[in-house]
Amino acid sequence: MDLTQKLAAIEEIKALKARYFRCLDAKDWDGWRKLVFCAHSEMLVPEAQAEPVIGIDRIITFVEQVLRGTVTIHHGHMPEIAIESDTAASGIWAMEDIIYWPKDRLAQSRYSKLQGYGHYHERYVRESSGWRIKSLRLSRLHMIHTE
Amino acid sequence: MDLTQKLAAIEEIKALKARYFRCLDAKDWDGWRKLVFCAHSEMLVPEAQAEPVIGIDRIITFVEQVLRGTVTIHHGHMPEIAIESDTAASGIWAMEDIIYWPKDRLAQSRYSKLQGYGHYHERYVRESSGWRIKSLRLSRLHMIHTE
Amino acid sequence: MDLTQKLAAIEEIKALKARYFRCLDAKDWDGWRKLVFCAHSEMLVPEAQAEPVIGIDRIITFVEQVLRGTVTIHHGHMPEIAIESDTAASGIWAMEDIIYWPKDRLAQSRYSKLQGYGHYHERYVRESSGWRIKSLRLSRLHMIHTE
Repeated sequence: MDLTQKLAAIEEIKALKARYFRCLDAKDWDGWRKLVFCAHSEMLVPEAQAEPVIGIDRIITFVEQVLRGTVTIHHGHMPEIAIESDTAASGIWAMEDIIYWPKDRLAQSRYSKLQGYGHYHERYVRESSGWRIKSLRLSRLHMIHTE
Repeated sequence: MDLTQKLAAIEEIKALKARYFRCLDAKDWDGWRKLVFCAHSEMLVPEAQAEPVIGIDRIITFVEQVLRGTVTIHHGHMPEIAIESDTAASGIWAMEDIIYWPKDRLAQSRYSKLQGYGHYHERYVRESSGWRIKSLRLSRLHMIHTE
Repeated sequence: MDLTQKLAAIEEIKALKARYFRCLDAKDWDGWRKLVFCAHSEMLVPEAQAEPVIGIDRIITFVEQVLRGTVTIHHGHMPEIAIESDTAASGIWAMEDIIYWPKDRLAQSRYSKLQGYGHYHERYVRESSGWRIKSLRLSRLHMIHTE
């Protein structure tokens, strides 16, 4: 890849991560399947999982269940993207997430609001339809639970 | 446009939106007029308006009135910019806004603080002086009012 | 520099600022020394300093002392980067910072949490090892102290 192609790949990966966030907060799981992840993507959110969830079907089932009935806001910031080849890249993103649980889930939930901060550590793969998130691991700086 | 020119246009539109936010929080309406909007720009903030405000004069009058005496913080995140031609583009931005109303406006206002989250859906036009916001529509994920 | 090289420099400066934030919140001062600042960098945080701190050793001493024992989250947004030559550039960034002081520092501190908003006004220099922050000045939109 020449320099222009690398810069284009970086911009495409930034737009990919923007779709990740926008579809997540819209609960557009079909968008995740078609425009964000690939068939064998891996997701590890250590506060919720001991092992990575593998495969887009399991990822959607997992996230859809955790976030059912919530209002969420997820923002990403300050990417560091490294293009390794024309089909492989890695990236780090700062993030903030806010989750509001509805009242009818309060009985099962300890918290009505969670606000957290951390970083995504990711790998990307370019498939025929474009760049996709191959693996995602979340690390945390801080989390605040509000009753 | 070749790929390099497209990438340059995307970067220019990101810097345009940065000026939008910086001038907004500085209440630099002259900056909005000269460096952000064009003469016939349209703005639709559905929580405040039933119809779009059309024209830079009306946009400034509308926003200046709503925000008079406030401290505001507006941040944008995660752009998805699509260059359609060398003079037309569209974009989506995640956003967060925080508005602090001063005490002397509390009598007329129900709230002393508003914090909101959502997305801007925008169109851009390239004029002789550079890229400008042609239309802006805000959609909301959530809003929190604090007394 | 041609247009592609300018776009590459802008992307490198964005990644530089991402390292600034990531190393700051990880208290990775060695990362600041090797990957973020240069030997004679200047930092001015007006709420804490009357004069700029000059030199990477003094910058690290100053910031390490202020933030000892804290949890911090710093996010940057909406850069406006101007490449002036192949070794000089300037930039403005919107920012948000959150600082949580630990309980054992509360006796010396008036606040247990500070949340602030503002802008970084920066100059960059390209050294043999890459772009570095030459000077950084913080301006504030708002600060909230919580007991």
